[in-house]
Amino acid sequence: MKESWSAFDTFEPHFRPLVIIELAKDTKEETKEWLTQRIVDKKKKEGAQLLVKPLVKEDGGKIDGNQNLYLVGASHLRLLLGAETVGLVKECNDNSMRTFTYSSRNTFKDFAEDNHDFLTMAERQYIIKHELENLRAKDERMIPGYPQAKLYPGKSIMRRLMTSGILLQIFPLHDTEELKKLWYTWCGQVKISYQPLDEIRCYFGETIALYFGFLEYFTFALVPMALIGIPYYVFAWEDYDKYVMFASFNLLWSTVILEVWKRCCAIMTYRWGTLLMKRQFEEPRPGFHGVLGINPVTGKEEPVYSSIKRQIRIYLVSLPFVCLCLYFSLYVMMIYFELETWALDFHEENESYFSKLMLFLPSIIYAIVIEMMNRVYRYAAEFLTSWENHRLESSHQNHLILKVLVFNFLNCFASLFYIAFVLFDMKLLRQSLATLLITSQILNQFVEALLPYWLQKRHNKKVKKRVYSIKVDTDLSLFEQVNLEKEMGTYLGTFDDYLELFLQFGYVSLFSCVYPLAAVFAVLNNITEMYFDALKMCRVFKRPFSQPTANIGVWQLAFETMSVISVVTNCALIGLSPQVNALFPDSKTDLILIVVLAEHILLALKFVMAFVIPDKPRDIQIKLARLEFESLEALKQQQMKLAAESLKEETHGEKKMN
Amino acid sequence: MKESWSAFDTFEPHFRPLVIIELAKDTKEETKEWLTQRIVDKKKKEGAQLLVKPLVKEDGGKIDGNQNLYLVGASHLRLLLGAETVGLVKECNDNSMRTFTYSSRNTFKDFAEDNHDFLTMAERQYIIKHELENLRAKDERMIPGYPQAKLYPGKSIMRRLMTSGILLQIFPLHDTEELKKLWYTWCGQVKISYQPLDEIRCYFGETIALYFGFLEYFTFALVPMALIGIPYYVFAWEDYDKYVMFASFNLLWSTVILEVWKRCCAIMTYRWGTLLMKRQFEEPRPGFHGVLGINPVTGKEEPVYSSIKRQIRIYLVSLPFVCLCLYFSLYVMMIYFELETWALDFHEENESYFSKLMLFLPSIIYAIVIEMMNRVYRYAAEFLTSWENHRLESSHQNHLILKVLVFNFLNCFASLFYIAFVLFDMKLLRQSLATLLITSQILNQFVEALLPYWLQKRHNKKVKKRVYSIKVDTDLSLFEQVNLEKEMGTYLGTFDDYLELFLQFGYVSLFSCVYPLAAVFAVLNNITEMYFDALKMCRVFKRPFSQPTANIGVWQLAFETMSVISVVTNCALIGLSPQVNALFPDSKTDLILIVVLAEHILLALKFVMAFVIPDKPRDIQIKLARLEFESLEALKQQQMKLAAESLKEETHGEKKMN
Repeated sequence: MKESWSAFDTFEPHFRPLVIIELAKDTKEETKEWLTQRIVDKKKKEGAQLLVKPLVKEDGGKIDGNQNLYLVGASHLRLLLGAETVGLVKECNDNSMRTFTYSSRNTFKDFAEDNHDFLTMAERQYIIKHELENLRAKDERMIPGYPQAKLYPGKSIMRRLMTSGILLQIFPLHDTEELKKLWYTWCGQVKISYQPLDEIRCYFGETIALYFGFLEYFTFALVPMALIGIPYYVFAWEDYDKYVMFASFNLLWSTVILEVWKRCCAIMTYRWGTLLMKRQFEEPRPGFHGVLGINPVTGKEEPVYSSIKRQIRIYLVSLPFVCLCLYFSLYVMMIYFELETWALDFHEENESYFSKLMLFLPSIIYAIVIEMMNRVYRYAAEFLTSWENHRLESSHQNHLILKVLVFNFLNCFASLFYIAFVLFDMKLLRQSLATLLITSQILNQFVEALLPYWLQKRHNKKVKKRVYSIKVDTDLSLFEQVNLEKEMGTYLGTFDDYLELFLQFGYVSLFSCVYPLAAVFAVLNNITEMYFDALKMCRVFKRPFSQPTANIGVWQLAFETMSVISVVTNCALIGLSPQVNALFPDSKTDLILIVVLAEHILLALKFVMAFVIPDKPRDIQIKLARLEFESLEALKQQQMKLAAESLKEETHGEKKMN
Repeated sequence: MKESWSAFDTFEPHFRPLVIIELAKDTKEETKEWLTQRIVDKKKKEGAQLLVKPLVKEDGGKIDGNQNLYLVGASHLRLLLGAETVGLVKECNDNSMRTFTYSSRNTFKDFAEDNHDFLTMAERQYIIKHELENLRAKDERMIPGYPQAKLYPGKSIMRRLMTSGILLQIFPLHDTEELKKLWYTWCGQVKISYQPLDEIRCYFGETIALYFGFLEYFTFALVPMALIGIPYYVFAWEDYDKYVMFASFNLLWSTVILEVWKRCCAIMTYRWGTLLMKRQFEEPRPGFHGVLGINPVTGKEEPVYSSIKRQIRIYLVSLPFVCLCLYFSLYVMMIYFELETWALDFHEENESYFSKLMLFLPSIIYAIVIEMMNRVYRYAAEFLTSWENHRLESSHQNHLILKVLVFNFLNCFASLFYIAFVLFDMKLLRQSLATLLITSQILNQFVEALLPYWLQKRHNKKVKKRVYSIKVDTDLSLFEQVNLEKEMGTYLGTFDDYLELFLQFGYVSLFSCVYPLAAVFAVLNNITEMYFDALKMCRVFKRPFSQPTANIGVWQLAFETMSVISVVTNCALIGLSPQVNALFPDSKTDLILIVVLAEHILLALKFVMAFVIPDKPRDIQIKLARLEFESLEALKQQQMKLAAESLKEETHGEKKMN
């Protein structure tokens, strides 16, 4: 046993397991030894210099010969140096944010050599993940014991293990104490309050905290719309001018909130340090493949794949396929509408209990078909995006998000567009909108959080029973915890959560002038959504790795696009409304021209507003400028010193010559 | 005399004057001595460490006691160190572009200790300008001899001298040899060829070379439009489908050319090194004033001015004023149209020679009034922008450009819009468009280049006569050159040149479906424009200081906005055309809806295209990524070394303790 440990752990009294590595059950001993050795090896031997220890039930000795779970940790010093490597940004004593370096550690707030909480647990786990992923092959040509799992110098070992199926998963451990505390401040109190975003960030990292921040912000931003929308329902206002007012307010408001979000996001991520974090050089994603070649950027040997081939795949295969799917989805929608009229006719002809049931049939079939199409399409999109073979995880994600987004948009809103602009049936539109919005919200929360929570609880009980039955000593609580957590579902990222908000934003803004009450439902939904999402994060899923991020990325663009589209739809709806049509009894042309003019003015206003509102608040701008100025000054000082020296030398030399 | 020279110039056999400083005639000797001393002083004494020498006619001794022209130069070494300070980027031996540092000087292409042409003359002059502008007050409280010209530590001396009226101008000297060569390759040959952009950049710097690059690119980009436009004129095509074809092509083409320009621009500025140049910290512009306070970014004492006050001035004074001017301009236009109809009526009633003349009167009056309004407005805009008191030259320029742009746009195009969309007179529109385009082009070239050239030539003769009359010795050619050049006009930047192109782009694209021939005239104009602008730069104006720049800045946005507006106008024009109207005899509504739909599709296509076409070509992207990767690697290496050392120390220490 002893030799597989780092030389350090003996000096580190608090070896605290942070990350779990699970290998396949039948992994060869040879491979395990090699892997742990590589993880423990010193930096100068190109190891990760971390601490690693197999998870064992210590009833006097090992009882499980085929151990496949490893605890990974690191010494305090190693973590601090790792923080420097990943470029963490922390707060200094003078309240400014700076990139952490080990040599300047004493200028940072709350830093003390014995303060092991200087780095949050999420940060420590992120550092370990980063170090593990950057553990690279030296001169190994293959993974020991697995000749078919080829390696080449510089290839990430963990990624190869993962693609070869030897490594099942790497996940960070929950901290039960902290989690309990977080859960209490987050959802434990009944009083309505802000979410503890900073605590969420400390525990789950920036990406997830930013999602909850956005959810909270978005909910607050919807409140004015909801408040204005209520009287429309209460007093049953149907005047056209009131609807125009509401729609105009809504359209401009949506631009304002999206612009102001950028500012709020900058404030938060500045406080968290991620706004200042330098982008790291991105490694190829695990699934990326190609012939071995020279990377033009790094000059190192790695798989390369022609960008032209990828473009061809994107534009000649993926794009037509997506278009075909969109067309197919529209086709299915048309069939649904035909079925609907057919069912109505059937009901009118032979009115019976059966025919009444038949009325619901088309909707049920359509809902099922849509759900199936969504799932099939999702698989297809993932397959296609993988097949496009993007080198970077980020561009892979962006292409996947774009594909899924477009399809979901069409699936959700095509029927509403059809009702609005082909059938011209505003009553039906309002009704469908309400049904879709409310049912999708309820279903979502059930499928996404409550059902998994219930399954999880049942499962936990089983695992606990199994573990307790062989319970013997004190270390079991960790053993039990790891065994419980490794069976938990994996949180697949914020994609689905943002998608849900995106579609909700669509329901609220696309047809806002028809159904002002949508915002009210959205607000109500989001309040419960926060609790369910919190439940999901804390109780249902494995703890996800923290992921530093400075903004919500492609979603900002998606929401902005939606808000532009909603200008067009709302103007068209107002133009179609009978009240407005009644104002122009003689000339439809004038009406259309006025609507088009209004639309253009609104669009222009939106663009001007987006341009005029600065993306970062002034004080953040100043802080960023100060940091930039300081680094420029430092550079200049250095150059001036150098220059003075060079000039001195030269003068000296010349004088001697004279 | 000797003491006002640098200690270096004796060691520098090639003291080559690069920049001229002209002081006011009555500047006190005390001030002159102080200034030259400060320029010559060593860096460690906070001087600029340059070489300076008064310009004298050496006929045995000084004859002019009140000398006010100074030649400034620098040693080769000083210039190299200055190149590092300003962050010049040069080509290395391995063809990559890197920021020049003195210590790595031997890795750069064409570098040799005795190669004084390693830096182009424009670069040397830019370095000297930068060093002069960064010559800052130490403990002086005022300029010696001028107690009213206050100084504070860190205030740029040259800027204070300029605002106090002591310093009349600083300008770089022409290099007659080089200029002759440049002129020959540029305009000397009769054959049609590309412009020598790299040579222009070496002589005039990046901003001007980029303008000529854009002019050339834009002309080439217009050629397809012109070629397609010619048959419309030759065969007198009037079919609506052909016009629609032309307009659609035009609209998409304009997006393509603007996106491709970004790529061309990136290729050029990468070659020139400015794409990689780091933004320097911007000093306040000379005209900026405020109470002394602490700059929150630098932490230094300097004038500060509340951003809120500026916002108030912009939104409560400037914005209403601009709107008022726009309204006034529209009002004048309406009067013009009334006058026009009145003159027509008058001519019809009493047909005579006099009444025929009267027909031209409104146009002449309108042209004169517009020109006057333009000038008055320009002054007002400059005054208002100064009064807004922007801290940075760049934001001052942007606000000025925006104000002038909007007004010019309205002045040029309002009458055309009126004719098109109020009078619905397509014949008149085409006629006015042709008249406006052609006359403005001819007038511009005359006023902008030919007239000044003629004036300059006349003036030169006079000055030459005056100088020759006191001609005595060999140094006269420099003396004569400086005296000639200091009287030349100052080139006020590329603003007016870009504005001209912008308006031309408007004429070509806004109403392209009515007058396809516009592109032909634009191409013809631009070919002569190149020569006239070359003439202007080489013969009429003082040599301007080189200004490193990586793109055409706000103009890219202006051109893109114009291309969006032109989608709207062209769709509207097609919708108005009688041929299209004839296709929809029953329902105007359908027509308008189809036009609006087409417009939206075109706009969406433009946005998608702008999004899909990458702003930088792939090879430039790879080169930039490689540079970034290298700097990240260097940082990592450094950190790893540090980490290894720290860990070693710790282990060592711990082992000792055990």
